[in-house]
Amino acid sequence: MLTETSSSAVPVAPSRGTLRPLSLNQVRIQGGFWSEKQELNATAIIDHCESWMEKVGWIGNFDAAVEGRLPADRTGREFSDSDVYKLLEAMAWEIGRTGDERLDARFRALVARIEPVQEPDGYLNTKFGRPGQAPRYSDLQWGHELYSYGHLLQAAVARGRSAGPDDALVRLARRAADHVCDTFGEGGIESVCGHPEVEMALVEFGRFTGETRYLDQARLFINRRGSGVLGDIELGRSYYQDDIPVRDAEVLRGHAVRAVYLAAGAVDLGIEDEETELVDAVVRQLDRTVARRTYLTGGMGAHHEGESFGMDFELPSDRAYSETCAGVGSVMLNYRLLLATGEERYADLIERTLFNVVATSPAADGRAFYYTNTLHQREPGSTPPEDEPSPRASSSLRAPWFEVSCCPTNVARTLATLGSYFATSAAESLHVHQYATGEISADIDGGTVAVRVETEYPNDGVIRVTVTESVDTEWELSLRVPGWATSGATLRDLDETRDVAPGSATIRRRFAVGDEIVLTLPVAARWTTPDPRIDALRGQRAVERGPVVLCVESTDVPFTDDVDELRVTGELSDVDGVVTVDARKMTPPEQSWPYGVNDGLVADETHSIRLIPYNSWANRGPSTMRIWLPLEEDIVRA
Amino acid sequence: MLTETSSSAVPVAPSRGTLRPLSLNQVRIQGGFWSEKQELNATAIIDHCESWMEKVGWIGNFDAAVEGRLPADRTGREFSDSDVYKLLEAMAWEIGRTGDERLDARFRALVARIEPVQEPDGYLNTKFGRPGQAPRYSDLQWGHELYSYGHLLQAAVARGRSAGPDDALVRLARRAADHVCDTFGEGGIESVCGHPEVEMALVEFGRFTGETRYLDQARLFINRRGSGVLGDIELGRSYYQDDIPVRDAEVLRGHAVRAVYLAAGAVDLGIEDEETELVDAVVRQLDRTVARRTYLTGGMGAHHEGESFGMDFELPSDRAYSETCAGVGSVMLNYRLLLATGEERYADLIERTLFNVVATSPAADGRAFYYTNTLHQREPGSTPPEDEPSPRASSSLRAPWFEVSCCPTNVARTLATLGSYFATSAAESLHVHQYATGEISADIDGGTVAVRVETEYPNDGVIRVTVTESVDTEWELSLRVPGWATSGATLRDLDETRDVAPGSATIRRRFAVGDEIVLTLPVAARWTTPDPRIDALRGQRAVERGPVVLCVESTDVPFTDDVDELRVTGELSDVDGVVTVDARKMTPPEQSWPYGVNDGLVADETHSIRLIPYNSWANRGPSTMRIWLPLEEDIVRA
Repeated sequence: MLTETSSSAVPVAPSRGTLRPLSLNQVRIQGGFWSEKQELNATAIIDHCESWMEKVGWIGNFDAAVEGRLPADRTGREFSDSDVYKLLEAMAWEIGRTGDERLDARFRALVARIEPVQEPDGYLNTKFGRPGQAPRYSDLQWGHELYSYGHLLQAAVARGRSAGPDDALVRLARRAADHVCDTFGEGGIESVCGHPEVEMALVEFGRFTGETRYLDQARLFINRRGSGVLGDIELGRSYYQDDIPVRDAEVLRGHAVRAVYLAAGAVDLGIEDEETELVDAVVRQLDRTVARRTYLTGGMGAHHEGESFGMDFELPSDRAYSETCAGVGSVMLNYRLLLATGEERYADLIERTLFNVVATSPAADGRAFYYTNTLHQREPGSTPPEDEPSPRASSSLRAPWFEVSCCPTNVARTLATLGSYFATSAAESLHVHQYATGEISADIDGGTVAVRVETEYPNDGVIRVTVTESVDTEWELSLRVPGWATSGATLRDLDETRDVAPGSATIRRRFAVGDEIVLTLPVAARWTTPDPRIDALRGQRAVERGPVVLCVESTDVPFTDDVDELRVTGELSDVDGVVTVDARKMTPPEQSWPYGVNDGLVADETHSIRLIPYNSWANRGPSTMRIWLPLEEDIVRA
Repeated sequence: MLTETSSSAVPVAPSRGTLRPLSLNQVRIQGGFWSEKQELNATAIIDHCESWMEKVGWIGNFDAAVEGRLPADRTGREFSDSDVYKLLEAMAWEIGRTGDERLDARFRALVARIEPVQEPDGYLNTKFGRPGQAPRYSDLQWGHELYSYGHLLQAAVARGRSAGPDDALVRLARRAADHVCDTFGEGGIESVCGHPEVEMALVEFGRFTGETRYLDQARLFINRRGSGVLGDIELGRSYYQDDIPVRDAEVLRGHAVRAVYLAAGAVDLGIEDEETELVDAVVRQLDRTVARRTYLTGGMGAHHEGESFGMDFELPSDRAYSETCAGVGSVMLNYRLLLATGEERYADLIERTLFNVVATSPAADGRAFYYTNTLHQREPGSTPPEDEPSPRASSSLRAPWFEVSCCPTNVARTLATLGSYFATSAAESLHVHQYATGEISADIDGGTVAVRVETEYPNDGVIRVTVTESVDTEWELSLRVPGWATSGATLRDLDETRDVAPGSATIRRRFAVGDEIVLTLPVAARWTTPDPRIDALRGQRAVERGPVVLCVESTDVPFTDDVDELRVTGELSDVDGVVTVDARKMTPPEQSWPYGVNDGLVADETHSIRLIPYNSWANRGPSTMRIWLPLEEDIVRA
């Protein structure tokens, strides 16, 4: 029997901040793009992740532990336990969101297989500590034990907040968290995990349980990091953010997932400790990262080597790593800063990253994923194997599973918690940050307010918000106007329509049930020009439509398989969302040495080329693809 | 007592081919750029390599083996033995070239420390096979045992050809080579080494000793490779060229050094086996690699990850790996094809790679090296430590030594053998491929011919060739006209001057001692435009002067430390080799999001900016640097 999911079912519950989170059941997405993705998660992705982890033995590792078959029978990488925990987290939120009792039974069965592996002192890991295995915590650089606890704690928070605190996973996680504090607290091992994650998990577990020792432990981890406690590696200490203390860093650097997870934990700590300096440090780092180290898609990580950020403005489309997990982490980080500051620019990046990284990862059928999200596919890739895990970044096509498969479960838990990213509240206001047909309610001073949203967004720019529940006093309805809507956005209320600028469009008044407010966003396709410092993008433009980055896929180009031969003329058409650009085919020079030659010849004939949302590419077999399109010379002159 | 170095002192001695190699003492470089580099090698580089390998213990590993202190006292990576062998090869050629008896004594002392480590069956390696070490050949993917033998054999060939075959190192190498044949021959271990190298070494050792079994073994290794004998790795089988048999591949791919070493061995085998198909396969692969996967510098390898080639036209300046060793290997490969075909385009690439990769690696004082050779330094690097090895690709500044330090000794052996790359002969001809003041002699039909070359090349384009020894019959003098000399090259002979085109400028007649021929090459600085398919270079041009690639280093720019702010106007001046371009400073946009914005503002003021040879950059402290210079918009329009 499931308990009713309460308003406590929020992924993040800061004790202070400009905005308050809403729970999964206060924000119901009921139609359109994201509703379909949530449905895909419920019907395909979660099942797919579970069945693959059974198949490759990562769940079986726990059984093997119980049956004394470790290390002989262990499969997967050091951190494979964590993927099981991320699956549990996704399941927990999904159960909370839908009340799916069959999923709840599967959840309980999984927890029952993990529970007996936990040792009396709370230690829990299938990779370390047994005869024939490396000792506990003998490889903090790469062993990921604390990282795995982090995901365990997050799963327990999800379960506890959605199904109630009296739960086996919650009890198990508490023993693990206590073990971490016992082992790594004052007087214990004075180090950190090579992969940040446990920091934000400890803060949240502390918020959930009310125990301060977990927050204290997170503070220790964040304060220790950056002074070289992990030792050097060939990739450099910046790889795991142990090069510079978090308060002193100027920009996110190194392994992108590690960097955004650490930053999210630092924001959490700064909020709980009321340490403005720490939050400000992360804001400063993220500001520079967004302005100089982020792809048009919101993707982060420009190097395959080290899965890491590049230097400022080093953003090659064809080597974009843009790991799905970095996108997930960026959403988590930006959500925390949105709650802390109320600034819609964080919601802008959440929207961009959700539509163009997180939504790009799963295939249309939810049974294959991108680990990396390149912005430029030079050669058609090969089809990954159906029956075995793929290397994480070897193919241009989505793969059913990876040898390192952190991304699918990260997509699953993000889709399950999507509602919380869509709206927030404050004492006298309701804030809608993301738009989809659905219902939103919030408890504000004086009672509950609620609205119904109806929209075809992002296909269409009209967003109708109808008040369905109100209070007797004035309150504010705040609607985000995205940063890209620099002109043409309007807000209609009480038969008056006004232009609104990027940021928050707000109405403060007494609202009656039935009041309709209409926000209209200029979603028509537009050209986008890159910063002149990005060498990789010189002479190229991209097309965006609303928050959606478009691309050209060779599947849609009848006269060449190689999209690199296209040169666009600057003509752009958007007829009811069918977007085309005019392009000509370049005949490249035939030459034995590629330097010191003239440009290719551009054919006179102009073709109209269909663009599609980047998040939908590569669902029709191997292809080449570009987001950034080289311009014909006369366009460069314009 | 050293024996007189004979005409057998050649790095490569194919049994057939269009051109014949000349020995180190038949080509004497006596002035100018390369003479200075050879002097640097003799007075600094070789000593530096030896003292560092003593300091870090890689030579001491052999002592430790003798004294039974392995594996406890072993230092360095799996392949550190090979660097000692490359040092021996450099020393052997250098002793052959100069007759330096003190160096000879050091050489003998080193060999004496290695000799007792060899086991009775010929096995020799400090990393494997002892109690506490992994068994012999238990890690063919990464263990580098055969690779190390390859360098041992090449050192022995160098010693044997320059000092005579009755030599301790030659005997030691023969035992090792026999051991390889015994162990990996028919009926033995049916595999190959993860790092190609032993293939070309075995062919050459076979040429040197006259034993066919070494050639047979090379054939086995080359024929086995490409069918997945090494097993898969996350980088993919292409990393070590085990994805496609060498005869079937269309392009060089994977780890660049591995690729060019394997290709060189394949050419050697094809020549000895008179297998045209094999040589043609490599020619085809190299043709595409040069046209689509090679940097302006001649550098190869566009990915830090896997130190590997990118896809066609994937050539980002800022992530250029362009490993020094890949440059060395490319010179070796192109030299083999020059000998085989007589086509000067191979000498073109040798020249480009020598001036712009091999010469770039060592610092002006010969005591620090580049492992990678980036074409674009975005941020000033930090100064590497003086007293400890650096990670191989972590700094923008040359480092005294690396944890993986294959490059310094590769530079040393290349500089020691430089003469052989400069000229060749055939039955009735002498071919000069590279130009420096010096003396060249060759034995042709009818006797010995010799010339003296006087030139300030590449600073100046005038190359005076004076016949100093001749024969009674007609013979041909062939002078390479570089591919970049598309107009303006002239040849003067017998008071007649004619225009000559890229390729070979030849004169066939009876020559008398004292005859002077003057080749004049148009070395003045010129703009170079990239192939329009190279995304990373769109809207940019480079400047080359003769064979030398130029760059702008921030050290030479008074008004900014960031060369990325420069926009060149297209004005280029070359006054006696002092090259300047006109450029304006761009004021980049201030923005929180780098897409959807206008270009930076370009200041009206025009500055004249000094360009320097790329090979000399970063000798004046941390700086930023660019080879490819963004154009002002109106130049893009031109």
